[in-house]
Amino acid sequence: MAVCTTIGDLGEFGVIARVTARFPGSDDVILGPGDDAALVAAPDRRVVATTDMLVEGRHFRRDWSSPCDIGHKAVAQNIADLAAMGARPTGLLIGLAAPADLPAAWADAFAEGVGAECAAAGCAVAGGDTVRSDLLTISVTALGDLGGRAAVRRDGARPGDTVAVCGPLGLSAAGYALLAAGIAPGHTPEAPGAPAPRDDARQPDWALCLREHRRPGPPYDEGPRAARLGATAMLDVSDGLLQDLGHIAHASGVAIDVETRLLRPHPALSAAVRALDEAGARPRGPVDLMLAGGEDHALAATFPPDTEPPGTWVRIGRVAAGTGVTVDGRRSQAGGWDHFGASGGAR
Amino acid sequence: MAVCTTIGDLGEFGVIARVTARFPGSDDVILGPGDDAALVAAPDRRVVATTDMLVEGRHFRRDWSSPCDIGHKAVAQNIADLAAMGARPTGLLIGLAAPADLPAAWADAFAEGVGAECAAAGCAVAGGDTVRSDLLTISVTALGDLGGRAAVRRDGARPGDTVAVCGPLGLSAAGYALLAAGIAPGHTPEAPGAPAPRDDARQPDWALCLREHRRPGPPYDEGPRAARLGATAMLDVSDGLLQDLGHIAHASGVAIDVETRLLRPHPALSAAVRALDEAGARPRGPVDLMLAGGEDHALAATFPPDTEPPGTWVRIGRVAAGTGVTVDGRRSQAGGWDHFGASGGAR
Repeated sequence: MAVCTTIGDLGEFGVIARVTARFPGSDDVILGPGDDAALVAAPDRRVVATTDMLVEGRHFRRDWSSPCDIGHKAVAQNIADLAAMGARPTGLLIGLAAPADLPAAWADAFAEGVGAECAAAGCAVAGGDTVRSDLLTISVTALGDLGGRAAVRRDGARPGDTVAVCGPLGLSAAGYALLAAGIAPGHTPEAPGAPAPRDDARQPDWALCLREHRRPGPPYDEGPRAARLGATAMLDVSDGLLQDLGHIAHASGVAIDVETRLLRPHPALSAAVRALDEAGARPRGPVDLMLAGGEDHALAATFPPDTEPPGTWVRIGRVAAGTGVTVDGRRSQAGGWDHFGASGGAR
Repeated sequence: MAVCTTIGDLGEFGVIARVTARFPGSDDVILGPGDDAALVAAPDRRVVATTDMLVEGRHFRRDWSSPCDIGHKAVAQNIADLAAMGARPTGLLIGLAAPADLPAAWADAFAEGVGAECAAAGCAVAGGDTVRSDLLTISVTALGDLGGRAAVRRDGARPGDTVAVCGPLGLSAAGYALLAAGIAPGHTPEAPGAPAPRDDARQPDWALCLREHRRPGPPYDEGPRAARLGATAMLDVSDGLLQDLGHIAHASGVAIDVETRLLRPHPALSAAVRALDEAGARPRGPVDLMLAGGEDHALAATFPPDTEPPGTWVRIGRVAAGTGVTVDGRRSQAGGWDHFGASGGAR
């Protein structure tokens, strides 16, 4: 029987030493893990800061996502929040509250995912905390820099502005539904010696949905780019497009209309809905998933009427005088995500 | 039967609106809660950042501490980490992972404690996150500014330096022992209409230990002050004095000797040990609690030989060539705190 080292075997300082060894450095992290606090560059004389907590069974499932996926996603959703302000990331703090019997290999792979996503976004882990808990819970704090620009808030949209989105919508929610329906395979830790997946292995048409759910790839650089182009309001689409646009409408004191003819479902999304339908899972339609799916981590922004959003953005609607969000001119009942609501499973 | 509003009744955005209303503002928080991320001043072009996770049953108990105490302490231990770098606090991010049946009044009182401790330290809450979890878990991230000074790290102690401490030692551990032994009363939510405690109520001689355990008061201003005076190394005493001095000794490549004749137990600490002894709880002695108690949140620092620590600091030992920490010249076996160790209860 194989011996499995746990984080309880390593002890607090052993876990920290082992995990931090997997984090690459960066020029912005002046003093990294190991002291009372970290020191991170803030060239702008202001720091953008955001934090999220992720709870096992609510925000991730160890039988649905690999530890590396979970590390990637925890980082991605926080850096997406920085991008939505128009900031680039400079440093992250990672908190890990974990049972003592958590395999050390799980913590290693989680740290690898965290470090790899940081590297992809051009930042590094600056510090963190590890504590024992009966419930695996992750906290991520991301710090960023605006490069002298104004922060793009939620309250700057004006009547006449264009509403545009950068990044796929609905795929993550479809991936969740595929896992919930048992159509997509869960995560199984690879047995030692198992053959590596073949590169030419045939993937289902909906495979991208599963990937977007497990390891979203928010368009980090598009946030600062939109800010430079004069975006009047911006946010990260995490609770569902309509609910999040509702935040812009409310904060800005405007109305927003989304035109469904401008929402082009990704082929993988349509394939996922077909697969769910064939399995009798009674899925929402592709457009509904795009409007209210959640966890997209796309960016949604409003641009002045005379500004053409970059080609990486898709125009989906318009800002008008009034209040609330409409779809094709009609009030929508599509719900979004409430962390204390009754609808929650692992998301 | 009284109706008790829960955070599940309020929903995520209701909780955020209600809680953030209790947070005072500050000049350093340029953009506070409500957007994708907060914006905090970093006049120094660098930001000091630290994070902690607190788990119910491990780091606090709702039957031992009031929600206001828990808010105060969560903030205090993070700002102490900033002070230990020589920084003043600028802004905090608070994560709250809580069961849906958590009373809204608990969250209110927690937020009041958070806000009051921030105000006492001269900073404000800049943002946060609230999510649902079966296990009440708090994350705190504190941001600070060095005012142009070098960060005081753990690796700068040199042979000949003086070791000094600012803040009480052992009291928090004694308070914990008093609660664990059932000598000190737990926390009972006040019944509506119950009479307020009388100011002249006779307090036990150990009352200060209970207060230090529930609501420590780290000497925030003494960190930057020590930095200005040229402290060569500094940290927040959280895991027990000897273990924490061991971090300085290890990082600096020096030996540290603590002289027990310089450790003057506070009268409240001696009273607590007497009360524990009379109750048959077989307590550690006052000096042992000072050496290895944990959660003191005092500051420990090393000063150059020609620098007299301020009168608010107590000299407790000296740095020498060599390795490790000794007590009166002898190796000590006194343990400290390991978050994954077997010894943990609520701390």
